[in-house]
Amino acid sequence: MTQEYLFSYLLQLGDNALIHGQRLAQWCGHGPVLEQDIALTNIALDHIGQARMFYQLAASVEGNNRTEDDLAFKRDAHEFRNCQLVELPNGHFGDTIAKCFFLDTYNYFYFDSLRKSAHSGIAAIAEKAFKEISYHAQFAAEWVIRLGDGTAESHQKIAESINNFYPYTGGLFNTSSADAAAQEAGYAPNLKDIEALWFEKVTEVLEIATLTPPDPNMWMHKSGKDGQHTEHIGFMLAEMQFLPRAYPDATW
Amino acid sequence: MTQEYLFSYLLQLGDNALIHGQRLAQWCGHGPVLEQDIALTNIALDHIGQARMFYQLAASVEGNNRTEDDLAFKRDAHEFRNCQLVELPNGHFGDTIAKCFFLDTYNYFYFDSLRKSAHSGIAAIAEKAFKEISYHAQFAAEWVIRLGDGTAESHQKIAESINNFYPYTGGLFNTSSADAAAQEAGYAPNLKDIEALWFEKVTEVLEIATLTPPDPNMWMHKSGKDGQHTEHIGFMLAEMQFLPRAYPDATW
Repeated sequence: MTQEYLFSYLLQLGDNALIHGQRLAQWCGHGPVLEQDIALTNIALDHIGQARMFYQLAASVEGNNRTEDDLAFKRDAHEFRNCQLVELPNGHFGDTIAKCFFLDTYNYFYFDSLRKSAHSGIAAIAEKAFKEISYHAQFAAEWVIRLGDGTAESHQKIAESINNFYPYTGGLFNTSSADAAAQEAGYAPNLKDIEALWFEKVTEVLEIATLTPPDPNMWMHKSGKDGQHTEHIGFMLAEMQFLPRAYPDATW
Repeated sequence: MTQEYLFSYLLQLGDNALIHGQRLAQWCGHGPVLEQDIALTNIALDHIGQARMFYQLAASVEGNNRTEDDLAFKRDAHEFRNCQLVELPNGHFGDTIAKCFFLDTYNYFYFDSLRKSAHSGIAAIAEKAFKEISYHAQFAAEWVIRLGDGTAESHQKIAESINNFYPYTGGLFNTSSADAAAQEAGYAPNLKDIEALWFEKVTEVLEIATLTPPDPNMWMHKSGKDGQHTEHIGFMLAEMQFLPRAYPDATW
């Protein structure tokens, strides 16, 4: 596997974590109840922690020309390799839960497999992250069930959220050149296997939640890893990167 | 009048125009009907044109160490001298109309007087801007009347908008040290005179609109010219300044 593909693969992992974490952090102080506000903020911090580990590894693969901070704060939208799902606006609580549910269920199977990566650095990060990821997946699935099997209003809202975000899960399973190289090297799990596990679990949870599983043959958004993003990420980066761009030499 | 006060005074004028123009520009493509979408966007451009003229003059007063672009894109929130009214979020169409109505009515009397400024550069800008400002004031007043004297829903909404934004008009009439120096030099109108004219016109329009004029003795927000801002301007600047900060040497 070339260093270039490995770097790009690590960005995919780091960028998913950073952008999802940044989005969730926007809930801080806005959760529906204090307990869930704190839960979402903790989950956000877990993701930002994961992003840091992947960026540190990516920076060393690149030869340490750039730091983890450079990778987070000095790249523009087209250089980000996250899937589009994580950059979409939070919407209401049910929307956020639907996004988390799709991503965290994916992360659960992906990171479980990634713990056996032939790349020791990647395997170590996955091992470290897996415990919190299991909790994220459980948190999101429980909320999908609570909302789906709740009141008529909560059922209708979460059903809409599931339908609205589902087409963006295509970007999780689209095999990029970096994915293919990482799979070939034994560094990454096969995305087809992850997709099968994911689809089975998503269907199972949605059925418990009395929700209709989405049609697997519907048209899906597949971009993100290729640097093609929705307009939303630009506004996120503008906010997130303002301080380091306005004060490039700032230190603690 | 010291160059420092003159520079600060010109920033007050330029920043009001830039921030109000930037906010209105956010309506582009989102207006309730095409005609009003274009009207708001045109008004936005008028304000950005005014900002440019004030920034060019300010830059020359400062000794041309900085350009108009530096003043717009390389200052942080606490260096901005606009009143808080213009940085508040657009809200719905009625909210924006209420904001425009308060500001444009102020601008109408202020710029009418500013045309007779003892500073020839300021007088020239005011003369150039006054025609479009008259149109802005008329546009906003007509919409306040149309909404206030419209349906029960439009009446209720614009009444709330007027009440919500009114307390922020205090920042227009708060005499800063730069204002005082400019008045002393004969460069600027007396804000007490402008406030009396403004209050009379606002009351007149609101009465035609079947709306209750706000209580002039209510508590008012007075900051803005002193660099004290609401959190909203930070998000605006992050978006507005992203490109020149991310690509500092970019040229057309």
